[in-house]
Amino acid sequence: MKRTFLTLAALAGVGLTAAPALAAVPAAPAADAVGGGTAYILNTLLFLIGGFLVMWMAAGFAMLEAGLVRAKNTSTQCLKNIGLYSIAGLMFWVIGYNIAYPSFAEDSLGLIGGFTGIYSMQEVGAADLDTGYSVASDWFFQMVFCATTASIVSGTVAERVKIVPFFIFVTILTGVIYPVVVSWEWGGGYLDSVHGFSDFAGSTLVHSTGGWAALMGAIIIGSRVGRYGKDGQVNVFPGTNIPLATLGTFILWLGWFGFNGASQLAMGTVGDVSDVSKIFVNTNMAAAGGVVVAIILTQVMYKKADVTMALNGALAGLVSITAEPLAPSVGQSILIGGVGGVIVVFAVPMLDKFKIDDVVGAIPVHLFAGIWGTLIVAWTAAPDAGVTFMGQLVGVLLTAVWVSGASAIVWLALKYTIGVRPSEEDEVNGLDKAEIGVEAYPEFART
Amino acid sequence: MKRTFLTLAALAGVGLTAAPALAAVPAAPAADAVGGGTAYILNTLLFLIGGFLVMWMAAGFAMLEAGLVRAKNTSTQCLKNIGLYSIAGLMFWVIGYNIAYPSFAEDSLGLIGGFTGIYSMQEVGAADLDTGYSVASDWFFQMVFCATTASIVSGTVAERVKIVPFFIFVTILTGVIYPVVVSWEWGGGYLDSVHGFSDFAGSTLVHSTGGWAALMGAIIIGSRVGRYGKDGQVNVFPGTNIPLATLGTFILWLGWFGFNGASQLAMGTVGDVSDVSKIFVNTNMAAAGGVVVAIILTQVMYKKADVTMALNGALAGLVSITAEPLAPSVGQSILIGGVGGVIVVFAVPMLDKFKIDDVVGAIPVHLFAGIWGTLIVAWTAAPDAGVTFMGQLVGVLLTAVWVSGASAIVWLALKYTIGVRPSEEDEVNGLDKAEIGVEAYPEFART
Amino acid sequence: MKRTFLTLAALAGVGLTAAPALAAVPAAPAADAVGGGTAYILNTLLFLIGGFLVMWMAAGFAMLEAGLVRAKNTSTQCLKNIGLYSIAGLMFWVIGYNIAYPSFAEDSLGLIGGFTGIYSMQEVGAADLDTGYSVASDWFFQMVFCATTASIVSGTVAERVKIVPFFIFVTILTGVIYPVVVSWEWGGGYLDSVHGFSDFAGSTLVHSTGGWAALMGAIIIGSRVGRYGKDGQVNVFPGTNIPLATLGTFILWLGWFGFNGASQLAMGTVGDVSDVSKIFVNTNMAAAGGVVVAIILTQVMYKKADVTMALNGALAGLVSITAEPLAPSVGQSILIGGVGGVIVVFAVPMLDKFKIDDVVGAIPVHLFAGIWGTLIVAWTAAPDAGVTFMGQLVGVLLTAVWVSGASAIVWLALKYTIGVRPSEEDEVNGLDKAEIGVEAYPEFART
Repeated sequence: MKRTFLTLAALAGVGLTAAPALAAVPAAPAADAVGGGTAYILNTLLFLIGGFLVMWMAAGFAMLEAGLVRAKNTSTQCLKNIGLYSIAGLMFWVIGYNIAYPSFAEDSLGLIGGFTGIYSMQEVGAADLDTGYSVASDWFFQMVFCATTASIVSGTVAERVKIVPFFIFVTILTGVIYPVVVSWEWGGGYLDSVHGFSDFAGSTLVHSTGGWAALMGAIIIGSRVGRYGKDGQVNVFPGTNIPLATLGTFILWLGWFGFNGASQLAMGTVGDVSDVSKIFVNTNMAAAGGVVVAIILTQVMYKKADVTMALNGALAGLVSITAEPLAPSVGQSILIGGVGGVIVVFAVPMLDKFKIDDVVGAIPVHLFAGIWGTLIVAWTAAPDAGVTFMGQLVGVLLTAVWVSGASAIVWLALKYTIGVRPSEEDEVNGLDKAEIGVEAYPEFART
Repeated sequence: MKRTFLTLAALAGVGLTAAPALAAVPAAPAADAVGGGTAYILNTLLFLIGGFLVMWMAAGFAMLEAGLVRAKNTSTQCLKNIGLYSIAGLMFWVIGYNIAYPSFAEDSLGLIGGFTGIYSMQEVGAADLDTGYSVASDWFFQMVFCATTASIVSGTVAERVKIVPFFIFVTILTGVIYPVVVSWEWGGGYLDSVHGFSDFAGSTLVHSTGGWAALMGAIIIGSRVGRYGKDGQVNVFPGTNIPLATLGTFILWLGWFGFNGASQLAMGTVGDVSDVSKIFVNTNMAAAGGVVVAIILTQVMYKKADVTMALNGALAGLVSITAEPLAPSVGQSILIGGVGGVIVVFAVPMLDKFKIDDVVGAIPVHLFAGIWGTLIVAWTAAPDAGVTFMGQLVGVLLTAVWVSGASAIVWLALKYTIGVRPSEEDEVNGLDKAEIGVEAYPEFART
Repeated sequence: MKRTFLTLAALAGVGLTAAPALAAVPAAPAADAVGGGTAYILNTLLFLIGGFLVMWMAAGFAMLEAGLVRAKNTSTQCLKNIGLYSIAGLMFWVIGYNIAYPSFAEDSLGLIGGFTGIYSMQEVGAADLDTGYSVASDWFFQMVFCATTASIVSGTVAERVKIVPFFIFVTILTGVIYPVVVSWEWGGGYLDSVHGFSDFAGSTLVHSTGGWAALMGAIIIGSRVGRYGKDGQVNVFPGTNIPLATLGTFILWLGWFGFNGASQLAMGTVGDVSDVSKIFVNTNMAAAGGVVVAIILTQVMYKKADVTMALNGALAGLVSITAEPLAPSVGQSILIGGVGGVIVVFAVPMLDKFKIDDVVGAIPVHLFAGIWGTLIVAWTAAPDAGVTFMGQLVGVLLTAVWVSGASAIVWLALKYTIGVRPSEEDEVNGLDKAEIGVEAYPEFART
């Protein structure tokens, strides 16, 4: 999803990637060229469609999480999700975008960028033709990625974080922590220029970033009251509304066509739109692979097909293919997504062994599958793309260090100042009563 | 959203708004031009995408309202919503569209249009190139706006109106009352030609119209049984399903990108698609402003962050920016939406003081924020656009007089003929038993 | 939705259907032409947008069915739906697509096609310009139709089929049974070449195919425990969550714009995009007709407006118009959809007389309305299209014979080998406990 500065050649309508195919019809090459104005419109349209699909993922996370928490915390989870999406938009406007796409300080190796002010758009009716797309559409598309990162965190730390500290964390995550990671790769910084790191749509930049922030939250905040017994047993707190979680998963799956497909960043040439189409197919098949593997594994291991594992299998498949959804064959995509399904089935119980309380399974889905998806790019990328396992590993590790470190500092600062957790009594009664004053299901819930 | 008759110049591919930008690349102006056929397709595609996004808002209203009524009235609310969307489509076809876009009678000042027959489309495979877009796509896009107007009413008067009188009201609202308002502005009538009234996507034409019709309904029908006690106390009837209301809000937010963005009415030039992109950003940021303000205000005032206020804050932000989503800067958009959030937090309890029983808060969201959004255009519009505060006020007042008057007559006529309310016993037992025969949650609800 | 091989003339930008309209602007014919590259992009974009809208229908079926089963089987229904969508994608890749679009054996009359291997896409950045669209986008669009067919079955046979046999049936349905039907018509086989059979978007190919497979399942599997009493009385098992079913219906309605609209298969000419627009309008109006007729009929017959009938009325209207959503006038579309509403209201109780237990009403909606929609094309199709009542009837009957026969064999084979039903005790306790281990609503349900 690196920001592309299209050349005038591209604006003149000569699709570079389509050139070989064009050569096959030598008699009428002009017929397949796309004019620069038309390409500008189509590139912009891709950002707008991709943008609204990824915005819709905010609803997907909200439903997934609302379905997987207990009834007494559901209103809180709804509020957190609509609030974090709003905060992400505001912060990505005020500072985020221009941290993500900075002018890097000299001799900084592309590690330290300069903040260049609040994001601004052109005048009404004006258009910057040099970019090849509307800058506002680009901002919109990038903003919804920023919001996705925050959505990942809210699921893991659900049911035991108060609203105010949660929103403060989101403010810093979306304003600073995430944009810095982006600057290193899509902003043309260290990972991109020094290591040839490749992350097409954000397995590391978005999903692992959210995952590390969530993991630090889970560790520092601690587990929910009563979750882990003295004898090491894990008390299951079943989700309150499985159809809602299913709906959320379908929404996320739908949104992912925008997430990965529009990360092609252009559809103003026949080659680009063909690649977007391939990304749609690969994205879908990786998710399908994750679902089928998760169903088969749970059926074989437990003699039951755990529906929450199937849902998380879909998501893990999607996260896994996100680092490179274009280059793999369909078969490779199914395999990559299928391994995502394996990760979920084994990692979810494993986290409980370490008493890391991840309410919705976001750490296996977004962090572990994100790492897997990033590393496997070394296998699937085109040989001449310069992607190496070591380069990918550096990207994973640098993100780990920065996001974990920064997130830990923020969570700890919150913990020892205003506090992050409600009183145990409030937690047992549910956050909805203590924090929101509106029960989610006042006529249904027995608690 | 005024209907534009594109000139042949536009069809020839010279984007007017893009002209200044084009001047910056003098060597290759032709490269940025878009051919007339391509522009026609892209304009039509904008209507189709915008249209299906606004159609989806019908589901958003259905979920919002189903989540905020009590369980015993939920099936009825679902039926009303799918029914009103269907009726709106039929009525806008039979008479609505051609009332909205009439030939005005001479000397009528553009107030009294003539009904020119049932809407008709071109033959299969034919296209009216003079319009610059498919007339069927335009009709579809306009129709879903008409349906939105009716959706607003159903929320306010929920839980105490029988199905048949409700559907009769919807029939007249979508067939006559709303189209007449549209004719005055988007149809080129009185408000447009005499007062320079400006309402880009319908803060007044759609949202205030729905709001006035809802207000008259709430007053004439009266409040729900038991809602207001003798001593002036307000009995809270909490919504039955907050995640559903949250989902509805996210659906509406998503749909609003079509509502406002496609009201640009064209994306066949680089200038137009850039403007659509700006509208996406401003629309999103106004909603974000509404959410954050509503959360902060309720947190400060009540020490709790009321989730329904946050949801309505998003919607009020969206309604506020709808009258002019293009001209404001991002900062102005946040401010305009934020004021929408303030309006909701203060107006919802205020209505209860007047014993106006608005089940979902549609009157603050759609009427009050709609008026605010319309008036503030006098500040944000381009100086040479000719928008004045007085012109905007005339539009607000004329809509108020016409819609309130016409709606009151219809509600009163229904009240004194077939009756609008169920028996008190039926209302207490819930409309689902009396009117539908299908309970919404037969295995859950305790009532 | 027949696969079109665009000619070079079309690639050169001369929209055939737009020709008459172009003639009206003789001075500047070139201005309305669309270049081949642009047309390729727009055709591909139509498949992508249509594809993600139809993919979203998988969520619609999931919600509709989750809302209409009882709470104790809801998790199972969610799992079945996400599983079947995944399996459909895998099978349509491995064998389905290339069975659907085969090279027919000589002297086979276009009945017996040859399987030509796993589907494969072009290289990254490459594009097959001869097709006029990206082959990957076409595959994606066709795949989601395959998945829809399977979704129809899961609703009818809900609440009494175990997961494993259900998924095996889906595997064969999506890999073989459905693709063979497609080969006869959209693949250019027997029905298309010999009988001039016409099925624009799949009233027969998709909906009746799903319906026949569902009907065979309902008969062979048998009815749910306790559904039909000894004295012929029908015990009503009310759906557990009506708003969810309503949401599902709205999702399906939205998705249908992609289902029918993108089955135009092209929007690279002004004529094509105008036709897509007409399809949007007709599709919407047929659904509206189905809703209004179902509401009026149930209100008149039972003095109550049954919400599930209204929802199924919308779906029946949509299925009815799917065989020919372009040629009818708006008025014809309303009529055709309205008859769909009649079919639902009368057929749902009729099936119970025959003790055919169709949990969600999928057989009336998809099979009966599908047959109606297919036959009525003989009336609405253009006179020179060569569509005859007999040709349509042959298509209906051949599909009936093949799908019923093949489905019956598979269901019977499953029944007499691994078994299809859970034990009666498991069924009474609910499939969620026996098969999934995760209850859908652990805090709500009373059972």
